[in-house]
Amino acid sequence: MEGMLKPGSLQNKTIVITGGGTGLGRSIGKYCLELGANLVITSRKKEVIDKTATELMQETGGKVLAIPADVRKYEEIENVLKEAEKEFGQIHAVLNNAAGNFISPTERLSHRAFDIIVDIVLKGTYYTTLAAGKNWISKKQGGIFLNIVTTYAWTGSGYVVPSACSKAGVLALTRSLAQEWAKYNIRSNAIAPGPFPTEGAWSRLLPGDLVKKFDPAQRVPLKRVGEHQELANLAAYLLSDYSGYVNGEVITIDGGEWLRSGGEFSHLEDIPESMWDMIEKNRGK
Amino acid sequence: MEGMLKPGSLQNKTIVITGGGTGLGRSIGKYCLELGANLVITSRKKEVIDKTATELMQETGGKVLAIPADVRKYEEIENVLKEAEKEFGQIHAVLNNAAGNFISPTERLSHRAFDIIVDIVLKGTYYTTLAAGKNWISKKQGGIFLNIVTTYAWTGSGYVVPSACSKAGVLALTRSLAQEWAKYNIRSNAIAPGPFPTEGAWSRLLPGDLVKKFDPAQRVPLKRVGEHQELANLAAYLLSDYSGYVNGEVITIDGGEWLRSGGEFSHLEDIPESMWDMIEKNRGK
Amino acid sequence: MEGMLKPGSLQNKTIVITGGGTGLGRSIGKYCLELGANLVITSRKKEVIDKTATELMQETGGKVLAIPADVRKYEEIENVLKEAEKEFGQIHAVLNNAAGNFISPTERLSHRAFDIIVDIVLKGTYYTTLAAGKNWISKKQGGIFLNIVTTYAWTGSGYVVPSACSKAGVLALTRSLAQEWAKYNIRSNAIAPGPFPTEGAWSRLLPGDLVKKFDPAQRVPLKRVGEHQELANLAAYLLSDYSGYVNGEVITIDGGEWLRSGGEFSHLEDIPESMWDMIEKNRGK
Amino acid sequence: MEGMLKPGSLQNKTIVITGGGTGLGRSIGKYCLELGANLVITSRKKEVIDKTATELMQETGGKVLAIPADVRKYEEIENVLKEAEKEFGQIHAVLNNAAGNFISPTERLSHRAFDIIVDIVLKGTYYTTLAAGKNWISKKQGGIFLNIVTTYAWTGSGYVVPSACSKAGVLALTRSLAQEWAKYNIRSNAIAPGPFPTEGAWSRLLPGDLVKKFDPAQRVPLKRVGEHQELANLAAYLLSDYSGYVNGEVITIDGGEWLRSGGEFSHLEDIPESMWDMIEKNRGK
Repeated sequence: MEGMLKPGSLQNKTIVITGGGTGLGRSIGKYCLELGANLVITSRKKEVIDKTATELMQETGGKVLAIPADVRKYEEIENVLKEAEKEFGQIHAVLNNAAGNFISPTERLSHRAFDIIVDIVLKGTYYTTLAAGKNWISKKQGGIFLNIVTTYAWTGSGYVVPSACSKAGVLALTRSLAQEWAKYNIRSNAIAPGPFPTEGAWSRLLPGDLVKKFDPAQRVPLKRVGEHQELANLAAYLLSDYSGYVNGEVITIDGGEWLRSGGEFSHLEDIPESMWDMIEKNRGK
Repeated sequence: MEGMLKPGSLQNKTIVITGGGTGLGRSIGKYCLELGANLVITSRKKEVIDKTATELMQETGGKVLAIPADVRKYEEIENVLKEAEKEFGQIHAVLNNAAGNFISPTERLSHRAFDIIVDIVLKGTYYTTLAAGKNWISKKQGGIFLNIVTTYAWTGSGYVVPSACSKAGVLALTRSLAQEWAKYNIRSNAIAPGPFPTEGAWSRLLPGDLVKKFDPAQRVPLKRVGEHQELANLAAYLLSDYSGYVNGEVITIDGGEWLRSGGEFSHLEDIPESMWDMIEKNRGK
Repeated sequence: MEGMLKPGSLQNKTIVITGGGTGLGRSIGKYCLELGANLVITSRKKEVIDKTATELMQETGGKVLAIPADVRKYEEIENVLKEAEKEFGQIHAVLNNAAGNFISPTERLSHRAFDIIVDIVLKGTYYTTLAAGKNWISKKQGGIFLNIVTTYAWTGSGYVVPSACSKAGVLALTRSLAQEWAKYNIRSNAIAPGPFPTEGAWSRLLPGDLVKKFDPAQRVPLKRVGEHQELANLAAYLLSDYSGYVNGEVITIDGGEWLRSGGEFSHLEDIPESMWDMIEKNRGK
Repeated sequence: MEGMLKPGSLQNKTIVITGGGTGLGRSIGKYCLELGANLVITSRKKEVIDKTATELMQETGGKVLAIPADVRKYEEIENVLKEAEKEFGQIHAVLNNAAGNFISPTERLSHRAFDIIVDIVLKGTYYTTLAAGKNWISKKQGGIFLNIVTTYAWTGSGYVVPSACSKAGVLALTRSLAQEWAKYNIRSNAIAPGPFPTEGAWSRLLPGDLVKKFDPAQRVPLKRVGEHQELANLAAYLLSDYSGYVNGEVITIDGGEWLRSGGEFSHLEDIPESMWDMIEKNRGK
């Protein structure tokens, strides 16, 4: 799979990506650079985003600014936006991609563990959104929000309940502001990706043989997982002006998985209790 | 409108209602008492729930326990459940009804104001749900969750965005646990009420003439607001064993409003800036 | 499970049920009679509805009128309504329950076979709805529509595609008229039942061992199928004035099946081609 | 707005468009030609599609085959496919775009008028889909379906009820086959466009001053209607292999209209009866 947009489709656009150092955020960022965008990536881990910035600039010849921030701290997000504007003049789009997840029976989670996910995913997203939105509105600039959610944002799913609650909240944020902030020329959309494997992510969530047993490709009507470029193509479209009449929409890219299988992780009820003990130990917490 | 269920439909069932001191929570609680239930009501305001408990016992002859708690404090919720079990032996159902809301342009909200609503509505609900669920699961009892959400939990809505995000999260919680905890004989459902006026609520949200101008009845195909007993009938059904095969469902009772009008509060864009200044002043914050 | 509504909840209400001779339609009709309603049942098979009418009158002491009609013939529906009014004076509610279904790989269906289901389920429903609605509107009476759909009306499902298309159409009809005809005091709602076994229905759809292999109870989080009285309780509520503020709503009663499993019949892809040959032979067409 | 995909993105792909002679179908077809596709357009009106074919070939230098057919006649659709294969060798994608609509209070429609819309929109679509799908499956080719629906396919809408029922059926068809036919490498998706004006369409539906009074742009959060190229960009993406992991999805492109306003045409209840008389007269039927 290769990039689909015409060269220069994002020329001189500045895009901020939270959680942009690894995984899908990195893949989308790289494609935006190839299309001419300037990139600002942020995450808590300075070394990770610094390394990614260096690599991406070498690979694409584009400009990448790496500013560490914890999305749970409003001031740190404000700082990212300030630095981004200092470097590139204006921010055109924000990709809310930072997230966290536990796969666990819900009754095994403390309320504090539940909070951790909600604080990163939901609060982190609306903090970033508030900071960027207020900035755009005060300067009478328009802007674009693109939020990464999940297919269980509307069906819910067992075994990933904090993530389900948070992503549902992000989806409501997307749709609410699509209605309210359109008058400021701010568009808001979301993508709900199905299984797009990232190095280590699935094996971290489901250690050992479990990955094979619960092979997500088998639950997808198209019988395969997605390629990062497929997601990047869709994301670049939604981050560009080409999607100027798409607003308040969540686009699912999952090969048909959710229609066929309902709540994405609820089939994990086949994992016995003893296995959950092991999984928790592996998680080291 | 009168009660619809057969007398004794909730006989000897113990039902915990958060935010049960006033408004819709009080109305639902009263009808549960009339059907034979024991009631446990909780809110932060001890005087309010004490007064309500006394009144409800006089009006219905049923038993009401009032235990003050802040749903944002996990230990206080655990205490409510402990006191409820001490008094009534077993809890059969929990109605997550406590909520808060601001009507405001989103860019006028600080991130702290946004947090206040999320902490009460979303965190408060999953704290209560975690505490009650863990209790039921450890004792191998079943149970029933009924969560009050809103019709903008799925469309989103401008001008009530913190509430939209939180209620969407509560809906995902409902549907997720319907899948995951059904094996413990725990059912989870939600009600999305349209406009059911409660004393002071609408006039607090929309002061002065605005209530008339944005009269919610006009947006409802049936051209009227709802009666509390109509909501209480539906809630009592979902809190009873009669709804034993309804699980993971959100039932809308709004006269058709959302289908006709989309995001419930997004039409408030007709309110001018100067009016919002006034509304904020009236809110005293 | 027993009936939940107060005795007399449907006293003197006249309810027309299409496909009311057998299965779920019969069960709902019986409960309506117990609650005091007059019943009009219709289907193409005169002997079947005559027998049912006799039985139901004996069992409940209520009044049942059986008028044969093919819902695909507008004039025959008009005749049912005319006879119903002649007998009982006024019709208060219509339950659109008549349906048909094939379980089959879609590429094995001729366009004529596809038409058969659409003509019964979708056309039959809007014919009945048009006839009853025009009658109510011309006489300035209100009325209640209750339409039986399926959980795959919104997700779609493989292997029952004509039914999926038709039921989706019925759901849109329900929601459209909830918006448009509310001004005539006509409410429109739907129920989406999960697996409620009826004598012969499942074994007709899935002959031999297939019923065991694809045991629907296993796909339901609550691990059981529904009881007819559970559905009858919900239907009676929606047919009564107690649900007077529920309008445009589809209520799912499936134990959480669709959330957990997506398109209800899509898992039938595990049936090999040779088995489909056999199934078709058994179907005798 | 200009085209977004890289040149040659649809090189040598053959795309069949029903209702491809005018309006949005024509605009999408033109863009497909610019991207290198061969086009097959069909409608009942031979002169219209012949003229369009000539124009499009002149404008783009691409190849267009115009074959007249009534989508309500299965054999005529089979003939279109046969001719298309004879000319271009293989069909890669089908755009189900043919449609019809009445704007009218539902009680003013005869059941025959209702049938006309359902026969064109729903039956026409599943006839085309069955014919093309059986062809692809028998030849072990994959393929792509893209179906044009409406935003009121899920909310329903007053005053366009036959269209609402039909488009909801088409959406269910899309999602059902996305689940069932993915194993044959056939993808199925849909687009739900908001207001994209086409010459004559709106003024035909709403004559005289009504178009101004019910100006759709005012109901859209972005306060404008869509441009044809915006829709063509999205359609070309979904007709290309770039969207290879999007399956069973309906993408809304409406500026946020449905979220903000619910059932798209239900606000027409403000049109008085006398005006409907006039509208009907203008419609000449």
